[in-house]
Amino acid sequence: MIIQLQPDISASQKEKLNDQVNGIGYKTTSVKTQLGEYIIGIGKSEFDIRKIGQLDGIKDIHIVSDEYKLVSKKWKAKPTAIDLGDGVAIKDGEMAIITGPCSIESEEQIRKVVQHCVDNGIKMMRGGVFKPRSSPYAFRGLGLEGLKLWYDIAHEAGIKIVTEVMQTSQIEEMYPYVDVYQVGARNSQNFNLLDELGKVDKAVMIKRGISGTIEELLQSAEYVFSGGNEKLILCERGIRTYERASRNTLDLNAIPILKAKSHLPVIVDPSHGIGLRAYVPQMALAGVMAGADGIIYESHEIPEKAYSDGQQTLDFEQSARLAAWIRDSFAMRKNFDLL
Amino acid sequence: MIIQLQPDISASQKEKLNDQVNGIGYKTTSVKTQLGEYIIGIGKSEFDIRKIGQLDGIKDIHIVSDEYKLVSKKWKAKPTAIDLGDGVAIKDGEMAIITGPCSIESEEQIRKVVQHCVDNGIKMMRGGVFKPRSSPYAFRGLGLEGLKLWYDIAHEAGIKIVTEVMQTSQIEEMYPYVDVYQVGARNSQNFNLLDELGKVDKAVMIKRGISGTIEELLQSAEYVFSGGNEKLILCERGIRTYERASRNTLDLNAIPILKAKSHLPVIVDPSHGIGLRAYVPQMALAGVMAGADGIIYESHEIPEKAYSDGQQTLDFEQSARLAAWIRDSFAMRKNFDLL
Amino acid sequence: MIIQLQPDISASQKEKLNDQVNGIGYKTTSVKTQLGEYIIGIGKSEFDIRKIGQLDGIKDIHIVSDEYKLVSKKWKAKPTAIDLGDGVAIKDGEMAIITGPCSIESEEQIRKVVQHCVDNGIKMMRGGVFKPRSSPYAFRGLGLEGLKLWYDIAHEAGIKIVTEVMQTSQIEEMYPYVDVYQVGARNSQNFNLLDELGKVDKAVMIKRGISGTIEELLQSAEYVFSGGNEKLILCERGIRTYERASRNTLDLNAIPILKAKSHLPVIVDPSHGIGLRAYVPQMALAGVMAGADGIIYESHEIPEKAYSDGQQTLDFEQSARLAAWIRDSFAMRKNFDLL
Amino acid sequence: MIIQLQPDISASQKEKLNDQVNGIGYKTTSVKTQLGEYIIGIGKSEFDIRKIGQLDGIKDIHIVSDEYKLVSKKWKAKPTAIDLGDGVAIKDGEMAIITGPCSIESEEQIRKVVQHCVDNGIKMMRGGVFKPRSSPYAFRGLGLEGLKLWYDIAHEAGIKIVTEVMQTSQIEEMYPYVDVYQVGARNSQNFNLLDELGKVDKAVMIKRGISGTIEELLQSAEYVFSGGNEKLILCERGIRTYERASRNTLDLNAIPILKAKSHLPVIVDPSHGIGLRAYVPQMALAGVMAGADGIIYESHEIPEKAYSDGQQTLDFEQSARLAAWIRDSFAMRKNFDLL
Repeated sequence: MIIQLQPDISASQKEKLNDQVNGIGYKTTSVKTQLGEYIIGIGKSEFDIRKIGQLDGIKDIHIVSDEYKLVSKKWKAKPTAIDLGDGVAIKDGEMAIITGPCSIESEEQIRKVVQHCVDNGIKMMRGGVFKPRSSPYAFRGLGLEGLKLWYDIAHEAGIKIVTEVMQTSQIEEMYPYVDVYQVGARNSQNFNLLDELGKVDKAVMIKRGISGTIEELLQSAEYVFSGGNEKLILCERGIRTYERASRNTLDLNAIPILKAKSHLPVIVDPSHGIGLRAYVPQMALAGVMAGADGIIYESHEIPEKAYSDGQQTLDFEQSARLAAWIRDSFAMRKNFDLL
Repeated sequence: MIIQLQPDISASQKEKLNDQVNGIGYKTTSVKTQLGEYIIGIGKSEFDIRKIGQLDGIKDIHIVSDEYKLVSKKWKAKPTAIDLGDGVAIKDGEMAIITGPCSIESEEQIRKVVQHCVDNGIKMMRGGVFKPRSSPYAFRGLGLEGLKLWYDIAHEAGIKIVTEVMQTSQIEEMYPYVDVYQVGARNSQNFNLLDELGKVDKAVMIKRGISGTIEELLQSAEYVFSGGNEKLILCERGIRTYERASRNTLDLNAIPILKAKSHLPVIVDPSHGIGLRAYVPQMALAGVMAGADGIIYESHEIPEKAYSDGQQTLDFEQSARLAAWIRDSFAMRKNFDLL
Repeated sequence: MIIQLQPDISASQKEKLNDQVNGIGYKTTSVKTQLGEYIIGIGKSEFDIRKIGQLDGIKDIHIVSDEYKLVSKKWKAKPTAIDLGDGVAIKDGEMAIITGPCSIESEEQIRKVVQHCVDNGIKMMRGGVFKPRSSPYAFRGLGLEGLKLWYDIAHEAGIKIVTEVMQTSQIEEMYPYVDVYQVGARNSQNFNLLDELGKVDKAVMIKRGISGTIEELLQSAEYVFSGGNEKLILCERGIRTYERASRNTLDLNAIPILKAKSHLPVIVDPSHGIGLRAYVPQMALAGVMAGADGIIYESHEIPEKAYSDGQQTLDFEQSARLAAWIRDSFAMRKNFDLL
Repeated sequence: MIIQLQPDISASQKEKLNDQVNGIGYKTTSVKTQLGEYIIGIGKSEFDIRKIGQLDGIKDIHIVSDEYKLVSKKWKAKPTAIDLGDGVAIKDGEMAIITGPCSIESEEQIRKVVQHCVDNGIKMMRGGVFKPRSSPYAFRGLGLEGLKLWYDIAHEAGIKIVTEVMQTSQIEEMYPYVDVYQVGARNSQNFNLLDELGKVDKAVMIKRGISGTIEELLQSAEYVFSGGNEKLILCERGIRTYERASRNTLDLNAIPILKAKSHLPVIVDPSHGIGLRAYVPQMALAGVMAGADGIIYESHEIPEKAYSDGQQTLDFEQSARLAAWIRDSFAMRKNFDLL
């Protein structure tokens, strides 16, 4: 159960409320976010919702049978909008386009991608400065200095920054330079990292785990939300299956299902999903039709020379065309009366 | 290697050709289809293609390194069109729409679906008369009598019939009443069935196996083609993964990959793919954008009363809207310069 | 529900029984096997088992909630023993060892393997004469002639034959020469083949599908049993997962689960399971400890020269040692009070 | 390439060596562990190993083509032994038994498990004080205080402690009380955690990721090793597949493969693997036969009352019997001349 509290609830009212909920055999957790205050009750016994609903200090009360609670559409039917400022948002009813290289490589590279974004009306740029690599001997990114450099250039051009945070110690140092913290697929169940991101007042985009279920992705989001941060975005980036003709199996089935289960916006990453440049546009457009609120894909001036992921990265010409097609497809989708 | 023979090649020329190919250490298989005659050479040693290409009786010769040969785009770049007569075709550059119930249930049901197709300009109808069921105690379909009944009604209305064949003994008895033989996911590697369908001069649609790879699907098609039947259609219908929020994981990544590897048309089945009615339209439209040449989905007058698969079946109103959206999306996709 | 009938039940008693079961809303299927006669009732409503149990002609009645019925341990706790004659059996409490090549290749090869079996007290030999191959251009086996040749040699030496049947038309022609019909992984849900094997009075070993669930394997066995043949053996041979370091993922978890759910004997195939010769012995012995009633593995005089599967085939020296270790391990396992 | 350095190598010799290796186009990484000093060279060009091998300060040089280097058997054929002191070790040629509850719950519980270990000659105890939970509302463990309590009791009884570390900030505070740091399946690719554990001089047991490949597990171990810590243990705990009859699919195929590829000891966790109490003994014994160097399984005085994982936990009587069977099976396995 989710109990939304009145902003002016008193400490004694809160205590009474907790006692009542504990009294019916439910364990309570208090949650305070940027936008509100909640008591989450976890238990199994049946109870009379009206009895609790009548108590003082309650704004609203909802039964949510899912394992995840605060990210469920069952208590919050209205889609959550992530406002990044300056008119840039990730939300239902708009189509966010995020592009950029796998790794931030140099000042020159940053300038070129930023210019590409500006030229094509793309407001958000992706790129890694801390890179998770399976081998300890591979390039691990430019680190914080790279991020600062990127911030200076992107900020001036009005471009928002989406980049991966790999560990709790990076959260604070990255804070001034980041618009969206990305949690990578390998960290999708790094619960300490999720806990800490719950304490930050910036948007967090969580990628589905390498073999994460849809339910696990929602529970990972629940960690951040229950930690205090409602600014959440979900991202499908392909799952691991037996098939090897594609890098991963981009699971577009997840899009309508996540949209039906949660009020959070959902983004698709076709680059990591299918992993082959020639097919990224098709999967991006398929993602739009599946109901995504945004597409994140990799681009680079000369993909063949990218430090990483070149085989799945578009050049600027391909990227420019894809951005236009995404917008056209989204405009058409809005005419359809899809769920 | 694939050697396309001249129509007027003589027996002695053919023998000489075989000897030459065997002489470089390649095993040969002779293939004669509705459209042509081929010698397939399987081997690993390098050879001078010009020496063989100069022999008499050869129309063309191609090196194909894939495990599958005749279904590969490497020797036949031009897309294969499956012409069902009366102006109905499944082919690159058009968008085939196929709908109908999971099971053929009764004359009344057939009449209603046929009328629904006619009303919405849908030229092909699906339905099962022989049903593969995991439990031996479940409904196994109306059988041949059901098919004959269906044929009478559909034929009069100009609607083509797509239906599953489960075993070799059914091929001949079904022949007069079928436009497209469907090979189900569980029979995708039933090599005897594929062999026999190679001897038939009607279209065959092969569904990807329950956990079949893209390569295995192409090799299954190779069985039919090398058996003598070029009229082949590939169908993505979802694969088995760990995820249980959807019935299967509809793998749209397979669409652009199959289109790039093979000259055969590719169809998407969103109903079996995601398995949940509310999300079938999104996945159908995503399939269009991914590059499919057709969509096959389940519809029924009252899905809740369907003998099987009701949970993934659209009602006629939903189906009518979806058919229109598919056409709109396809019209838009044609404007995009996708691979 | 499973109703075991008295051998002397009259037609009118049977009719009355069917009416009663239908009367509580259960669909009935009559099953007559080599060993008995049953009525299977499929339905969901609750009923008073005593009321039906009192009717004339009933030997016993059981509620079985599993999707599979006759292969369930819930009605038949006593393990089923498969007696192949001449003191050779596959059954709980003994350890069946089955070995031989992937493909039957020649008279000389047969003689050598038969001798190897005789030398090592191995009573059952495997080998393929009809080979399912993903590519239509690969060696498809020696066919019926090969089987006859094999039979002559093996029969004289008192060795039983386990070999794959690929289609219904082969069942009858193979009958005189086969001791155990093997249903391969790709045919695990070829329901017509399973139906037809239900009509035969010889043992059938069903391999788990390439990505078959444990439940599906039991339902495939139910097809054969309900078709009239109780002589069934289940075989775990590895499933398809994302892991590529092994050919398949031999799923030994299936062994204790199958033994707990069904009364049928369970065999393990480590050769196809892990697919790498050096590790076949470890997986075979692990299979013994997991609770298997038998091990089937590939052996060949010179594995490097085998027509197929050489990389997972043991030579005779390795095979002789493995057979001894299997027996030692089984002798030890019998001392443990495992489930 | 791995270059093992002489203990007395001079700084200038090291510099010259680095220059030479860089000179052939290889990127170098310096690694200094408790036991030695290495230069890892990563590159693709061919070179004359003798030329580099002749340089001063080199103890040995090896070509290792695997992605992982220092954990590969290709340079260190001799199995690594993990000595925990007081005669307790995890190593090839011995059979480590580790048992205990999923979660450390209370002083009384700790005392009972420790006594159970003492009574049965079990020298290592497992238990979680920091618990990774998919839901933020679930019990997260007793934390550091629980660990201290456990340490006092276990230490007195001579029992070693194996417990999970979830984040870098816990490494130092846990250090005095831990004998083996366990990296859980969800953190198997938490590269920052692995980096930090490389700086610690205590044993680290890395569990295979939820859908981790065998290669990825070895690369995760490479992180710790190249960070400076050679005291590594690998643990198979089941992978995620489509099958749901078991909690996970314990992949025993991984055991002989890991043993063949790496010099590190390999442990099997049947409790998380199959996830069902009744089948844990079978899978444990199967793990022994597959070649494991140790078994880690869950036990609790009253499994039904355990805070977590009760369904896969043995009671003390079952545990005592299993420990004896593991030893018997291992004694037998040693007689077999397995790879």
